[in-house]
Amino acid sequence: MLIAKHQNIIDKAVKANQERTFYAQYPEHPKAYGEEAPPQGETSFKELLNKPFPRLKQKVVDGWHGEEVSPYTLQPLGITYPIVSAEELVNAGKRAGQRWAQLSVADRAGILTETLEKIQHHFFEIAHATMHTTGQSFMMSFQASGPHANDRALEAIAMGYQQLQHFPEHQTWEKPMGKISVKLEKTFKPVPKGLGLVIGCSTFPVWNSLPGMYADLITGNAVIVKPHPKAILPIAIVVAAIQQVLEENGQDPYTCQLAADSSEQPITKTLSEHPDVALIDYTGGSAFGNYVESLASPRKTVFTEKAGVNSVILDSVKDIDAVMQNLAFSVSLYSGQMCTAPQNFFIPESGIDTPNGKVSYDEVAQKFKDAIQALVNNPKMGAGTLGAVQNEATLQRVKAAGETGAKVLLSGAPVANDEYAGARTYSPTVLEVTANDTKVFEQELFGPVVLLVKTKDTDHSITLARGMADKHGAITCGAYTTNDAVKEKIADAMNSVFTPVSFNFTGFIWVNQHAAFSDLHVSGGNPAGNASFTNPEFIVKRFVWVGNRTYVD
Amino acid sequence: MLIAKHQNIIDKAVKANQERTFYAQYPEHPKAYGEEAPPQGETSFKELLNKPFPRLKQKVVDGWHGEEVSPYTLQPLGITYPIVSAEELVNAGKRAGQRWAQLSVADRAGILTETLEKIQHHFFEIAHATMHTTGQSFMMSFQASGPHANDRALEAIAMGYQQLQHFPEHQTWEKPMGKISVKLEKTFKPVPKGLGLVIGCSTFPVWNSLPGMYADLITGNAVIVKPHPKAILPIAIVVAAIQQVLEENGQDPYTCQLAADSSEQPITKTLSEHPDVALIDYTGGSAFGNYVESLASPRKTVFTEKAGVNSVILDSVKDIDAVMQNLAFSVSLYSGQMCTAPQNFFIPESGIDTPNGKVSYDEVAQKFKDAIQALVNNPKMGAGTLGAVQNEATLQRVKAAGETGAKVLLSGAPVANDEYAGARTYSPTVLEVTANDTKVFEQELFGPVVLLVKTKDTDHSITLARGMADKHGAITCGAYTTNDAVKEKIADAMNSVFTPVSFNFTGFIWVNQHAAFSDLHVSGGNPAGNASFTNPEFIVKRFVWVGNRTYVD
Repeated sequence: MLIAKHQNIIDKAVKANQERTFYAQYPEHPKAYGEEAPPQGETSFKELLNKPFPRLKQKVVDGWHGEEVSPYTLQPLGITYPIVSAEELVNAGKRAGQRWAQLSVADRAGILTETLEKIQHHFFEIAHATMHTTGQSFMMSFQASGPHANDRALEAIAMGYQQLQHFPEHQTWEKPMGKISVKLEKTFKPVPKGLGLVIGCSTFPVWNSLPGMYADLITGNAVIVKPHPKAILPIAIVVAAIQQVLEENGQDPYTCQLAADSSEQPITKTLSEHPDVALIDYTGGSAFGNYVESLASPRKTVFTEKAGVNSVILDSVKDIDAVMQNLAFSVSLYSGQMCTAPQNFFIPESGIDTPNGKVSYDEVAQKFKDAIQALVNNPKMGAGTLGAVQNEATLQRVKAAGETGAKVLLSGAPVANDEYAGARTYSPTVLEVTANDTKVFEQELFGPVVLLVKTKDTDHSITLARGMADKHGAITCGAYTTNDAVKEKIADAMNSVFTPVSFNFTGFIWVNQHAAFSDLHVSGGNPAGNASFTNPEFIVKRFVWVGNRTYVD
Repeated sequence: MLIAKHQNIIDKAVKANQERTFYAQYPEHPKAYGEEAPPQGETSFKELLNKPFPRLKQKVVDGWHGEEVSPYTLQPLGITYPIVSAEELVNAGKRAGQRWAQLSVADRAGILTETLEKIQHHFFEIAHATMHTTGQSFMMSFQASGPHANDRALEAIAMGYQQLQHFPEHQTWEKPMGKISVKLEKTFKPVPKGLGLVIGCSTFPVWNSLPGMYADLITGNAVIVKPHPKAILPIAIVVAAIQQVLEENGQDPYTCQLAADSSEQPITKTLSEHPDVALIDYTGGSAFGNYVESLASPRKTVFTEKAGVNSVILDSVKDIDAVMQNLAFSVSLYSGQMCTAPQNFFIPESGIDTPNGKVSYDEVAQKFKDAIQALVNNPKMGAGTLGAVQNEATLQRVKAAGETGAKVLLSGAPVANDEYAGARTYSPTVLEVTANDTKVFEQELFGPVVLLVKTKDTDHSITLARGMADKHGAITCGAYTTNDAVKEKIADAMNSVFTPVSFNFTGFIWVNQHAAFSDLHVSGGNPAGNASFTNPEFIVKRFVWVGNRTYVD
């Protein structure tokens, strides 16, 4: 059985998951996958272009459709995907789920780990697919949709493997009653809740979808994967690989189905509202996310990762230049299109303490602008860090942000990409607002735009950052302080609104990054989302413990 | 610290909780508590009658009110309780919660276990209080509100103790990056969601409230306990004991408050809808329970234990008389007022298989009636098993059930209680309906009334029992079969609607009983309620894991 083959991987993942030390099953260095893998991946990707996607095992199809456009070439990919009705998807998923639920936890864990081993061979193909749908740089596309996503999936498998065995499968219960005793044979069964639906987003079509998919699957639920119509290919490759492993192991490939749709005839609401869909995982904007959350009921469990307004609180630093370089990279990375990217920078009007005395507010602002410009204009770094803006509407919103009345400290501008002349690559815009301009900074400004907010002092910064996280949600908070009391105050304030804080990041680590097996991604406690990759709650809400008892004579 | 004093109790409880073997920290035999305890408890109870309840630490009071009436004497208890405004309760609870949240998990576990040790000294007083508010027999009052409730509370403490330590408090994370590495110090903190509200019921005012109260408290949330206005005294004694231990250990007694109200001016909805109430635990009828569930939102987590329609499926038996005696006891125990009591008995029209051949449907019905009459008319058993009907409305509903058009096989009648001449003690009514009379048997008939449903065969019985559990919820299902294939079919069908099955119970064990540390009470997966005593989900939804990271130079 596959569980025997993969027991070691699963055991190590369970251990890492619990200990939260550094762990990676799938190396993030492209070189780890051999010399042949990169060119083969590129070739495979190119062969997929301009034709119907050939690999899915789903046979009942209403038609074919595709509308993906590369943010690098601005040209359509020309790939079409099978369009299947919601009713057909649900019926096939329910049938498959009944069979999948019969498998033992160990058997499911073995098969699912095998799917990750299979997906691994598609990492470079998925990287190109991600790049040309999301606009991520090649390296980010490779890491986020490849090893990092696989690690997040393995994390969900491991958490499920552990939680599903929380109670014993069988137990004898014997109650002493004086001279006699009463004996019962008991069983404890984690019964899957039912069909799952995973709704993906256009910026992280694999990384954000795999946790929900694997959480559904490990707990015995079949899953329908509904990608964003502009970013289907990366997850289609993954679903096809999963289906192949399912079939190779005698399972129904419909246990994991792709539900492609079109912008003109979206299927998401029909699927979400279907009474037989018991579990929904959603990643994306808050408006639709709030709608998905409103569907939650005793019969429908909903997991969301929406948007937040992330803050950086600047109080005092050891090395102002190192901090500014770190923050410049954070705001430039994938053009601020990460849900973990910082947006609002709270800086006291009196400036920031350093070992060499105060750095004034204006100096801080200048150093920040300088650091961003140095990065984006660095020919070896700029275009690769920024990637491309996923869609034109984002860019238009960023341009409009300068018209909010905020003072423009730095105007975003096109950045040349050597490889793709027409790439939608744009440097960050930096605006300055006062603490009274809440209408400007109390909203998510998605994309390459950040705000500096001048505050009275650090306490004021904390109050504003905390209030925003409480009201609008936050996924990350960066903070810089060399004062232990201030550090504790920031931690207490932000943690009280369920927002994690990253302190004093410099060098090769950024607030945007959440590592599998150690960092919980989204806390689930504030309006940025109700779910967390991957805490026990992310797993235990997908099944129900049911215990039977048999009297023993 | 108290944790050192109680570490052994907690460790044993954690182990039992996970292994699900028989375990009891608090013995269910009254004799285990010494010869002095019973008379002392009775004296204490009598001293509480006809005056304001003196023990609570809550000082801000709008007035005093009480309306409890003994189902045994039909006389008011004459005890009044402090009436406090919702706003005052919430404000005091929030203040207390901020302090309580600062304690370590171990400190909270130590103090909470100490409260159970304190409550133990009130077991007999609580027993009399329970008896004269709920109508339970003295023995059930003692066991359910005493040792069994304390064990359920300890179960919640133990599950919390385990879940809150799922991730390490501190961890160093070091990522190798070629020749260098990046090092972060990480913390993982279970942040309490906020103020809890526990809404009690009139039949099990302690047993059903303690799990939610202790689950809130162990996870760092202060709690407001809102009892049913007709059954306040048992839980008031418990709350007062908790407050005393909190105060003795330097904690704010407002961490656990009593919110007594009156039938005329109920406070439950005001508290439930208060934006600062983050957690609600509810036990009681389905109509109000559905309202409480409708309040669930990302900011409000709701746990419910409502009502279900419990079935018994009769297929084949080893000893028909032993089965009928067991079932007669199940339906008579506390006059069918347990949420676990069976209501609908599905019997094939062709009868039941036994080692001595078929027993016809009519014979089964006759044996069932005979067994009930033998029990209720047994002077040593009858009144003690039945207890008293908690309120007159229940009795009127039972009497009206005979007017549904169903055939009355056995009419309930008053049963004499030697000790309390006026006790509201009434034997069960047995009705017979056809499988088409869904309007009659597809509703909860609370109290001493059961229905025999004549079915085509066992498959038909399973279909009906499964459908009802799916549609209306079920907390238990009893099944009798000597055929392994039928057993599996029943288990699969009922488990698929998240209903546990108890097979072939005879002798000194009844389907109504759910033992702490082993049986999950309510699965949480069907309309009978969304929560389960005590699975991991019952705990992990009360706090949020938040992780901070600090860069290490």
